[in-house]
Amino acid sequence: GSHPHGPGHIQDPASQRLTWNKSPKSVLVIKKIRDASLLQPFKELCMYLMEENGMIVYVEKKVLEDPAIVSDDNFGPVKKKFCTFREDYDDISNQIDFIICLGGDGTLLYASSLFQGSVPPVMAFHLGSLGFLTPFTFESFQSQLTQVIEGNAAVVLRSRLKVRVVKEPRGKKLAEHNGLSENGLPGPPLEGGKQAMQYQVLNEVVIDRGPSSYLSNVDVYLDGHLITTVQGDGVIVSTPTGSTAYAAAAGASMIHPNVPAIMITPICPHSLSFRPIVVPAGVELKIMLSPEARNTAWVSLDGRKRQEIRHGDSITITTSCYPLPSICVRDPVSDWFESLAQCLHWNVRKKQAHFEEEEE
Amino acid sequence: GSHPHGPGHIQDPASQRLTWNKSPKSVLVIKKIRDASLLQPFKELCMYLMEENGMIVYVEKKVLEDPAIVSDDNFGPVKKKFCTFREDYDDISNQIDFIICLGGDGTLLYASSLFQGSVPPVMAFHLGSLGFLTPFTFESFQSQLTQVIEGNAAVVLRSRLKVRVVKEPRGKKLAEHNGLSENGLPGPPLEGGKQAMQYQVLNEVVIDRGPSSYLSNVDVYLDGHLITTVQGDGVIVSTPTGSTAYAAAAGASMIHPNVPAIMITPICPHSLSFRPIVVPAGVELKIMLSPEARNTAWVSLDGRKRQEIRHGDSITITTSCYPLPSICVRDPVSDWFESLAQCLHWNVRKKQAHFEEEEE
Amino acid sequence: GSHPHGPGHIQDPASQRLTWNKSPKSVLVIKKIRDASLLQPFKELCMYLMEENGMIVYVEKKVLEDPAIVSDDNFGPVKKKFCTFREDYDDISNQIDFIICLGGDGTLLYASSLFQGSVPPVMAFHLGSLGFLTPFTFESFQSQLTQVIEGNAAVVLRSRLKVRVVKEPRGKKLAEHNGLSENGLPGPPLEGGKQAMQYQVLNEVVIDRGPSSYLSNVDVYLDGHLITTVQGDGVIVSTPTGSTAYAAAAGASMIHPNVPAIMITPICPHSLSFRPIVVPAGVELKIMLSPEARNTAWVSLDGRKRQEIRHGDSITITTSCYPLPSICVRDPVSDWFESLAQCLHWNVRKKQAHFEEEEE
Amino acid sequence: GSHPHGPGHIQDPASQRLTWNKSPKSVLVIKKIRDASLLQPFKELCMYLMEENGMIVYVEKKVLEDPAIVSDDNFGPVKKKFCTFREDYDDISNQIDFIICLGGDGTLLYASSLFQGSVPPVMAFHLGSLGFLTPFTFESFQSQLTQVIEGNAAVVLRSRLKVRVVKEPRGKKLAEHNGLSENGLPGPPLEGGKQAMQYQVLNEVVIDRGPSSYLSNVDVYLDGHLITTVQGDGVIVSTPTGSTAYAAAAGASMIHPNVPAIMITPICPHSLSFRPIVVPAGVELKIMLSPEARNTAWVSLDGRKRQEIRHGDSITITTSCYPLPSICVRDPVSDWFESLAQCLHWNVRKKQAHFEEEEE
Repeated sequence: GSHPHGPGHIQDPASQRLTWNKSPKSVLVIKKIRDASLLQPFKELCMYLMEENGMIVYVEKKVLEDPAIVSDDNFGPVKKKFCTFREDYDDISNQIDFIICLGGDGTLLYASSLFQGSVPPVMAFHLGSLGFLTPFTFESFQSQLTQVIEGNAAVVLRSRLKVRVVKEPRGKKLAEHNGLSENGLPGPPLEGGKQAMQYQVLNEVVIDRGPSSYLSNVDVYLDGHLITTVQGDGVIVSTPTGSTAYAAAAGASMIHPNVPAIMITPICPHSLSFRPIVVPAGVELKIMLSPEARNTAWVSLDGRKRQEIRHGDSITITTSCYPLPSICVRDPVSDWFESLAQCLHWNVRKKQAHFEEEEE
Repeated sequence: GSHPHGPGHIQDPASQRLTWNKSPKSVLVIKKIRDASLLQPFKELCMYLMEENGMIVYVEKKVLEDPAIVSDDNFGPVKKKFCTFREDYDDISNQIDFIICLGGDGTLLYASSLFQGSVPPVMAFHLGSLGFLTPFTFESFQSQLTQVIEGNAAVVLRSRLKVRVVKEPRGKKLAEHNGLSENGLPGPPLEGGKQAMQYQVLNEVVIDRGPSSYLSNVDVYLDGHLITTVQGDGVIVSTPTGSTAYAAAAGASMIHPNVPAIMITPICPHSLSFRPIVVPAGVELKIMLSPEARNTAWVSLDGRKRQEIRHGDSITITTSCYPLPSICVRDPVSDWFESLAQCLHWNVRKKQAHFEEEEE
Repeated sequence: GSHPHGPGHIQDPASQRLTWNKSPKSVLVIKKIRDASLLQPFKELCMYLMEENGMIVYVEKKVLEDPAIVSDDNFGPVKKKFCTFREDYDDISNQIDFIICLGGDGTLLYASSLFQGSVPPVMAFHLGSLGFLTPFTFESFQSQLTQVIEGNAAVVLRSRLKVRVVKEPRGKKLAEHNGLSENGLPGPPLEGGKQAMQYQVLNEVVIDRGPSSYLSNVDVYLDGHLITTVQGDGVIVSTPTGSTAYAAAAGASMIHPNVPAIMITPICPHSLSFRPIVVPAGVELKIMLSPEARNTAWVSLDGRKRQEIRHGDSITITTSCYPLPSICVRDPVSDWFESLAQCLHWNVRKKQAHFEEEEE
Repeated sequence: GSHPHGPGHIQDPASQRLTWNKSPKSVLVIKKIRDASLLQPFKELCMYLMEENGMIVYVEKKVLEDPAIVSDDNFGPVKKKFCTFREDYDDISNQIDFIICLGGDGTLLYASSLFQGSVPPVMAFHLGSLGFLTPFTFESFQSQLTQVIEGNAAVVLRSRLKVRVVKEPRGKKLAEHNGLSENGLPGPPLEGGKQAMQYQVLNEVVIDRGPSSYLSNVDVYLDGHLITTVQGDGVIVSTPTGSTAYAAAAGASMIHPNVPAIMITPICPHSLSFRPIVVPAGVELKIMLSPEARNTAWVSLDGRKRQEIRHGDSITITTSCYPLPSICVRDPVSDWFESLAQCLHWNVRKKQAHFEEEEE
């Protein structure tokens, strides 16, 4: 027996279950604002949570400031019971047992951005069209909530990317920009006056040419080695969750969220032979402008925090140790294939053959 | 703390090293036959292994029966020292400490087929063009061999697929076919007279329309659920290793061998929206003819064992617990990107921009 | 004025109309055989043509020999009025004013194969699912027929390819094969005992690896110059009409039938950078096995006439001077986009956005 | 004979030749500015044209204002002989017999923009890497020029698109923008205060999301009918010449410049089933924001004239009656395949097979 051996254990994705150490008490409700169609479901849900389940409900302050809610007298008594918080000011990340989202995929991306560390389980209802991240229908929300509270649900752990944007100092202008740090956690001061921000990303990091009509030109490093240069509209570094979002539009294969991997997808690459690649979750990626780049690039994180990247700046990406636990309607596999069909029409066919080949 | 948690440990692919419990003594040398250009390297290698390193060298009987070797007097004394075996007759799988391949990727696929259980580490030399599976150049084989024998090398564990082909009984014709079982390990007799064969596959299982000019029509099940129907030229189920072979030609993204995943790639699918997908290594796939299929399909395993699949037959695929340990020239990441560039010209570019956009 | 000038006239595809020199009298009705669902429409149509319009109706002999028709007493009196013919025996190509097809796209491909020279206008009804080549629904066939007979219809001239397969003599075996010439028109005897067949193709010529599991390796010449070597599953040379059939499955862009062009599409090419190309209708293509090919290839023409291609054989392809005039339901542009949506679900979308980007 | 007939004549692209009514006397030399490596070839070329061939040489005023030329005493006597002009001020379009470009593809796009009507033949030298539009090498420029002057050269007529951008009036802001009309020819005043610009485009019109990180949402009309809605990064409408530029990066098939067609290519479309299409050169396309679009879009023309498109604005595209005659090194077919290989590495392969399939 002098052979090395393979992994003794291959994880079965269907086996992940929601487990509560103690019964959940505080729930954060995320509601897309300025969407009138969400008001009624929001109210029904919150009343059910508070009055039938005795839960503490957290909402963002601006949700309750929505004129449609302010002017609703029926909702008055309930309103006082909410705990409110403000994005970027109040840290509630340790006070929440689970999260409920009402809206589309954007609602869940927003929820993700509020938790830069550990994330509570998320139950996401789609109101409007089905999204990849929002499997629950609102119709029977009461029975579904009961299942979740009783711990009777499967969970898919969606990996996130830890993204660190490091910028060369550029005087006053840069400092001002950094003042707008939003949810970015400012790191410790770096040598040479560099500034670093760190974010947790659920779908993808996009580096593109921004408003420029010139090609972007960026170098991609993996574990310190230059692996390729991207010349084209840009490059997407995505989680498996993000492989069905922008990366799919750019031609990537779709990856189930239980695969521990990072996807690198060029956007309209100059080279015909530049195909998307999938690398192990354990690597460290770094992206910088190529030395020969004549224009800057722009980075955005889950469609937010758009900022310019110049010579010397870098974007470092690793798999985060804080995945987002997403509660399933059925199980991680069934839910995913359901979304592929519903959201992307993946291989949806007519029943009958449409081009037959020949007579006889 | 009522949250589920993510994986505490994400494997670093660069950390896998070759380790010997005791010094390796027996080596299997695989040589592509009937290729005159391989004779000289083969002889040099074997003499070096036997005479300088005191190793026991196994070769296939037919290799020594090659007229070019029989007639070579200089090789006479060495010839007697070989241990020989015959494919399908002699089981040497427990007697080999490591394997050396001389040839192209086909040589390694062949080596894989000889080991239906645990596989010793493989050191593969490309003679001719660079292959994905054959990273070593022969020029400095002696020093490279020394490194390997001293355990001074990185290893990539290439996952394999365990494929089980179950056939409905169809009288004499099927029985005859089964007589040609080659390396397939016949399973125990099944209920209803079914016959099952099991194989270990390194690159891919291909199900296609064979010689028919009609579309194939097969159903794909994942963990018992029908996930999709493939209408087209066929479907490829591949390992990450196989993602750079036929699956790449069919449009798949390329997956690093360290990602624990299985890739499903349609071949010229009828549906414009049928994109390749990547599922976790832990699932069980099953493929059968669709009930509405008007033609049979054909299956092949790493390009071998081509056989017809009829209504009622099934192909069950899981990740094998016997990966193939492939010795690296540098490390799993560098070797893979080197192969992407050399074998697939992946994003190989001219240094200068070729379509500039405008005059100032 | 020493400049060369561009084309003075660019054809407007919407302007092609059906024109009759004299009122049409003879109609060929093509019916897919052994499809019970077509019997009733077939009978209704033929009675209408003969009894209401006084037309001479041609059908293939085997259509009337179908037991379901033989045994139908109601159909007896009508049956005697048909003109019948046998494929490969009777040449009716100069006696037909227009053609009606009942079935799928295969029916039209079959109709095309019957006319190796000039083709009468074709009115194709889809019975079953919509096909690219069969735009008419049967429901209101009487009024639609009246429009056509009155010359009140648009026509799209679908270009065909003239394909000449030249084979090196190989003794008895080849001679036997040639005995099966089907609709191929044997050419004059060639120098060196070569044999040539010529066909008119509406969709595509496919050259592939046939039952072999090895890559095919063929050279493509354009106007006598080697332009590329295809290594992969094969290559498709198609008309614009064929660009929405097998070529679409192999990744081609879709070309409107009014574009005078020939499309060359590799099937699962080895090279990542091998993209489909579109060349002018006026060129001559020739395809042969590459000198280094270790296996034969197979050719098929509109899915028919499958035959082996060996070293020295050649396939020469030009745009035919006999296009197929296909009668439109509305006009060449509307019909085509209707088919893209119905048959290929081209860019069929849900009304609402499915992956929104962010909260707010 | 009551059949409609096909085109009696299919154009042979190889037959187009350069013809001079009288010997060419005036030549416009386009030189990329601020590129030091072009100075020496520029001087050699101009001296040869003036002194050996007695030609009148036109250059842009800013070319001679380049400090590197101003300070070059050797060039002094020659400088006086040039005819100069200024872009947007001086119309030289009727005074030029042919054009010589020194630089990359951008130089030719720039030359195209100077001629909004009829274009003289263009001889384009690549200095630096080979471009699709710049086939000539500078090494033997004298003999090649002689061939051209003697009319001994093939020409490919590259079709251009006539693009008309019509904008709803938006008060002062719009008026200011229109002041920057560059080469756009302002049309007559339109009803309702609309403003129209018209351009000739050689490669493509791009409509994209500009600096926005939201999807664009535009409607595409063909001959007045809505054919599809593009949701994604944008859409490219290109000539066959442009099919090898940005459209190729976005996944289009490549079209030879002699095919009379217009290509429509989505950029990272939301829908998996959205494939590029090719429509006849004779159609009229119109692009507008979709009524449901929540963001504006941006248009650019051959990478220039970037401007915002809002609700009510429209972009109308037809094939121009002023193609650009591009002089070939050999002929339209050979030059194109040479460019595919050199610029796009189209199907460039290693000589030996890289993944063989099996032992034996």
